[in-house]
Amino acid sequence: MKIGVIGGGQLGRMLALAGTPLGMNFAFLDPAPDACAASLGEHLRAGYSDQEQLRQLADQVDLVTFEFESVPAETVAFLSQFVPVYPSAEALRIARDRLFEKSMFRDLGIPTPAFADILSQADLDAAVASIGLPAVLKTRTLGYDGKGQKVLRTAQDVVGTFAELGNVPCLLEGFVPFTGEVSLVAVRARDGETRFYPLVHNTHNSGILHLSVASQAHPLQALAEDYVGRVLQQLDYVGVMAFEFFEVDGGLKANEIAPRVHNSGHWTIEGAECSQFENHVRAIAGLPLGSTAKVGESAMLNFIGEVPPVEQVVAIDDCHLHHYGKAFKAGRKVGHATLRCQDMTTLEHKIAQVQALIGN
Amino acid sequence: MKIGVIGGGQLGRMLALAGTPLGMNFAFLDPAPDACAASLGEHLRAGYSDQEQLRQLADQVDLVTFEFESVPAETVAFLSQFVPVYPSAEALRIARDRLFEKSMFRDLGIPTPAFADILSQADLDAAVASIGLPAVLKTRTLGYDGKGQKVLRTAQDVVGTFAELGNVPCLLEGFVPFTGEVSLVAVRARDGETRFYPLVHNTHNSGILHLSVASQAHPLQALAEDYVGRVLQQLDYVGVMAFEFFEVDGGLKANEIAPRVHNSGHWTIEGAECSQFENHVRAIAGLPLGSTAKVGESAMLNFIGEVPPVEQVVAIDDCHLHHYGKAFKAGRKVGHATLRCQDMTTLEHKIAQVQALIGN
Repeated sequence: MKIGVIGGGQLGRMLALAGTPLGMNFAFLDPAPDACAASLGEHLRAGYSDQEQLRQLADQVDLVTFEFESVPAETVAFLSQFVPVYPSAEALRIARDRLFEKSMFRDLGIPTPAFADILSQADLDAAVASIGLPAVLKTRTLGYDGKGQKVLRTAQDVVGTFAELGNVPCLLEGFVPFTGEVSLVAVRARDGETRFYPLVHNTHNSGILHLSVASQAHPLQALAEDYVGRVLQQLDYVGVMAFEFFEVDGGLKANEIAPRVHNSGHWTIEGAECSQFENHVRAIAGLPLGSTAKVGESAMLNFIGEVPPVEQVVAIDDCHLHHYGKAFKAGRKVGHATLRCQDMTTLEHKIAQVQALIGN
Repeated sequence: MKIGVIGGGQLGRMLALAGTPLGMNFAFLDPAPDACAASLGEHLRAGYSDQEQLRQLADQVDLVTFEFESVPAETVAFLSQFVPVYPSAEALRIARDRLFEKSMFRDLGIPTPAFADILSQADLDAAVASIGLPAVLKTRTLGYDGKGQKVLRTAQDVVGTFAELGNVPCLLEGFVPFTGEVSLVAVRARDGETRFYPLVHNTHNSGILHLSVASQAHPLQALAEDYVGRVLQQLDYVGVMAFEFFEVDGGLKANEIAPRVHNSGHWTIEGAECSQFENHVRAIAGLPLGSTAKVGESAMLNFIGEVPPVEQVVAIDDCHLHHYGKAFKAGRKVGHATLRCQDMTTLEHKIAQVQALIGN
């Protein structure tokens, strides 16, 4: 079976590393000449709206998936005429737009921060009056890693902010005094079978994920599975989805979903019996799902901007390096390390060792 | 770092799958148009004696390794002029020839079956008279998976057998009434640091490895490490080596070494903290070695001739498929499955499940 992937970054690279042992071949559509997944399959170097290349891709693969959610809707619609696309155009449409996403949460009874659709500065002023401050203004589409958003704390922060974010449709979200950020990575097969990985506790630095720690029997696991299950069923979803939550007052408030393999699930390569990448491939290929059980205690640390010297990373016992083969650049995700240990005490010690290499 | 691999079969493929996350790139020299490692790096399609292509390979990589030991000596010598080659030409020279190999065992005080160099039928007749029957006549070079050898049980079996094996230099080996076949996979770094995986118990069908089971605290582990350590030091070896032994009377007799990653170490991809493939890459690249500790209880089953339907293999919990992407052909190794379980009872149950798919 040959799988087409829209995007050839590290997620595509790790999909190919997981799918190749299943006998899958891969083709990546990515305009970047140095797309880091390219060495693991064919590389169609073209823009995401290049219909000729999209048609070429569709003609040579059995199905198409993607590694980022801001794929143009027209691209997905075009491809869907010729080849199955997983997850579906509808899942992408919802996940790509914070208004649709939050509205779906509300409709499904999943708690989420107060929000308002913002199409003008006047909308923003009215919404701030209603929701209150602090609040966060986010572009409805194309935001990631803390980009395309601004925290509003004072009335002064609100002035001119709609223009500052580019005069594009935005969402104002009430600020949530959360005690933690957790995410649940789930996978749903074509036949509806669904499996969930353990909840992961995430720590961000400057809006970018820094550390994910897989939890042990988290008390909110069942609640999170309930919420995520509602969304998966609503979208008749196929593949891996990540769902980010705020922990608030011993409960969960939905932040956002990612309709794809996700950074907070990278620990599963070594830390789970079957990784999120293999499970995504299995799901879209119509294969039985793999076990989401943990293997030992795991954590993942991102390497942002640069990978520390390889010999220092791999000198740490139980540390697994994932170098993305990308050019180093400030703020760019260029690699990660997974730690897999026998117990939490050892894990915490190893986390500190990796952090010392990063300088965090 | 870019690594050149002589040979582009499944061992090269699994080296690339393990080395890519370390940030390594790969180039494979293999005359086969459908070399199954080719999709994971550059493919120089040329014969192993094609000096122009060998030079091209040497010019674009930082070091060279190989995935089979019958690489022509001239190839290794030629490459070594331009680029480091690991393991060394000397290690290959010994491992490639059963006479040199057995003589080294004897010189290092490692028990091995009685043997005699056979250059003619007259040599064979004399050796049979001295060593006795049953015995095994093996070509000194190029034998693998039970090919290039004949078991001699009666005087009748001896008649004309030298010609039958092609009138090439052979070794006669006394038959050993072994109770089991075990192998030790070891890795040695450039600085001499050495690590050993747990002893593996191997079962063959028709001369081809069928099943490897990683042992738990095997009573012969220390003895095996002693023997293998002597060979590694003697050869100033760099990289992964596999050493096959017969279990005889509660001790070990050396059968043969493979100067490379080995089929009986495939279980380490999931079953050990750091796989034989990653450790080989680490060793030749001058990186610190990874842990050879087991993760759970593991076994590996080969798929010979064909891979069972993928959906049936992956439907077995804790079963990890490794499909080599090769054309199916009787007697050919085309894939394997690793099982990783919490305990031996579960492992034995799962082994039976995979065997049922194979029809063994």
